[in-house]
Amino acid sequence: MNAEIIAIGTELLLGQNVDTNSSWLAQQLALLGIDVYSFQAVGDNEKRIEAAMKLACERSQFVITTGGLGPTVDDVTRKAAGHVAQKQLVYNDALAKQIEEFFIKLGKACPKVNLNQAFIPQGATVIPNPAGTAPGFIAKVGKSHLACLPGVPVEMKGMFEATLKPFLKNLAPPGVIIKSRVYRTTGISESLLNEKIVDIFEKSVNPTVAVLAHPEGVDIRLTAKAANDAEADKSLEGLGKTLITRLPNHIYGWDKDNLETIVGRLLTTHQMTLAAAESCTGGLITHRITQVPGSSNYFLAGWVVYSDRAKSASLGVDPKLIGLKGAVSASVAEELAKNAREKSGASIGISTTGVAGPGGGSAEKPVGLVYIGLSDDQKTQSFEYRFSGNRETVKLKASQAALEILRRHCLKLSFKD
Amino acid sequence: MNAEIIAIGTELLLGQNVDTNSSWLAQQLALLGIDVYSFQAVGDNEKRIEAAMKLACERSQFVITTGGLGPTVDDVTRKAAGHVAQKQLVYNDALAKQIEEFFIKLGKACPKVNLNQAFIPQGATVIPNPAGTAPGFIAKVGKSHLACLPGVPVEMKGMFEATLKPFLKNLAPPGVIIKSRVYRTTGISESLLNEKIVDIFEKSVNPTVAVLAHPEGVDIRLTAKAANDAEADKSLEGLGKTLITRLPNHIYGWDKDNLETIVGRLLTTHQMTLAAAESCTGGLITHRITQVPGSSNYFLAGWVVYSDRAKSASLGVDPKLIGLKGAVSASVAEELAKNAREKSGASIGISTTGVAGPGGGSAEKPVGLVYIGLSDDQKTQSFEYRFSGNRETVKLKASQAALEILRRHCLKLSFKD
Repeated sequence: MNAEIIAIGTELLLGQNVDTNSSWLAQQLALLGIDVYSFQAVGDNEKRIEAAMKLACERSQFVITTGGLGPTVDDVTRKAAGHVAQKQLVYNDALAKQIEEFFIKLGKACPKVNLNQAFIPQGATVIPNPAGTAPGFIAKVGKSHLACLPGVPVEMKGMFEATLKPFLKNLAPPGVIIKSRVYRTTGISESLLNEKIVDIFEKSVNPTVAVLAHPEGVDIRLTAKAANDAEADKSLEGLGKTLITRLPNHIYGWDKDNLETIVGRLLTTHQMTLAAAESCTGGLITHRITQVPGSSNYFLAGWVVYSDRAKSASLGVDPKLIGLKGAVSASVAEELAKNAREKSGASIGISTTGVAGPGGGSAEKPVGLVYIGLSDDQKTQSFEYRFSGNRETVKLKASQAALEILRRHCLKLSFKD
Repeated sequence: MNAEIIAIGTELLLGQNVDTNSSWLAQQLALLGIDVYSFQAVGDNEKRIEAAMKLACERSQFVITTGGLGPTVDDVTRKAAGHVAQKQLVYNDALAKQIEEFFIKLGKACPKVNLNQAFIPQGATVIPNPAGTAPGFIAKVGKSHLACLPGVPVEMKGMFEATLKPFLKNLAPPGVIIKSRVYRTTGISESLLNEKIVDIFEKSVNPTVAVLAHPEGVDIRLTAKAANDAEADKSLEGLGKTLITRLPNHIYGWDKDNLETIVGRLLTTHQMTLAAAESCTGGLITHRITQVPGSSNYFLAGWVVYSDRAKSASLGVDPKLIGLKGAVSASVAEELAKNAREKSGASIGISTTGVAGPGGGSAEKPVGLVYIGLSDDQKTQSFEYRFSGNRETVKLKASQAALEILRRHCLKLSFKD
């Protein structure tokens, strides 16, 4: 069973609003085993909405629209749906009553214009809207179903959950659901990763494998079709294990996992505490670490030592060392990590110093050059990186590399591969 | 002149990524006076991409696609474009060289698979991609132009600005353009703001006025239709001035302005320097301040004093004061701001201490309670806030409030309204 989603609203085509409804609906449909064929977005134009609905109903058995169900003249989804379904719009007394009651609850009189929202195509099934005045409906269009929902996300979501989802569960043939899992890697390029799993990538049919690059790292998305949730999970986990064997050091988690959460969990498990001394990342590492609830249990102190003076005054880096090697150097990174650890009493110190850009680069020390220091009571070491991208991206990549170093340190993994 | 936008990627149809590219492109096209007819999103499926391209090229003179230009087998936009343009894909030596050079700059060997990205439809115009390996191109399809860009937003945007925009300016007939300006406020609720400008809101036809609330503050979006850019600007600026008169303290900038940039500019103008001591914001303030290029000129040092020990050891807050008033208190906020300033030698110290949640709250000191301290050589003071939302939102709102305090301090505006 195929579905399509149509977002309606001129504000979308002007770029004033980003359509997040389609993506949310697509997730819900995938979980029900329904393939989404395409999205469309059209303006508040009756003819164009009609054309989009017709095209979608020809290709797919289920079409969901969002938006254009408001009370005003530019809300023309009802009319377009009536034409496509070849049904007249009829005034639904029960709906009119619901709309009036919605206003009464708010202590207001129902504006006459809102009663326009009680018109739906003859024979359509009503989708009640407990959170607003725009009810939705499901109309038959040939062999397809056309479901029209309002564009306000909270209303749309409530109506999908309460009415459309059970309707779709009945409609969808028992059998196939689609479920994805996204494995997350960092510290490996898209092409190198590709080389390591190209055979899996090419031969995998179910789950399918796709690779997506972000500044923080490369994701591997597995998408399984299965009879039910448990089977899908089994199939995803099976291939996931193979991936982890191929990329033992690089995969740090999946789905909503992020490095700050993983590192937090590891520090907690190993009863370790952390301090950070940041120069070029400017507080981003500590910000990410402290986004995690409970981080005050393992994160003790951070320094953002942006100036040379701060590096010396706050963290005791010898000004002569800065003079000799430069603030952006392996030695300074190591001093920062060591002194942050010692000063805070933490078990690990992490540090960054580098050129985030756009200014400050030189032939010898170009924009993107970053040193990351790591210190525990056994050893202090540093790592050199050359990141591409603008200031924001360099900061992000450097913070990701620092968190990855912490993860590998906790897990005693190699830093090199 | 009509345009259409096609977003390509199975991840979109699975709801794993929200397509923000189309909306950004639509804004740019509106500024050029080009109407966007529709958006489509399709998966990584050659036939479906072809069908979407054909449909769009039949309806519109200009079609932009994003995504599917990567090096791997599931990147099929090049092939689909070749079919629709009825041109063979040809290997472009100059492009291959650019791709190889991109890797050389990173100190890496160019993986063979990336040279797939040097194939483009015969006769197409290359759109260089300085930020990545996926070049784009513009192919003729009948009377239409089909421009294919990569899906990575930062690459796509750079390529649009540098190559596609000038191309479109040449192509588009002069006519009516649509231009928006978004005025940004903070520290005022949506309903209070609404009260202050309700008359403007109701009577404005061109520009139109819309109000949008975010955790960082409330935006006021003006949208003007005009014959050209200059006229649109004039009309936007006219109404903008009225808004500023109504909300003299709250509007801090417009469009891409953010508080960290504004504060940076003010500190530079007034030759002031800054230090920050953060507890509950966990580095977010320094992260935001150091996102601004050149911030090393005015930002001297930051401390993230997450533990009580760090507050005392790093910034000399008396442990007795913490015992007496609690770490989350006006007195501790003031000590932190004062000591950060003195220790760093900066002209201003800013600090935060609060309960970001979800744990750590009490009846007396609930989640969301935040104290912000401000210190200069004249005075040290603090401000109390109660923010709603989850940990992330509380951190964000607290950082925004701290930056707003800095802005008002630099401008000598009242802190109260």
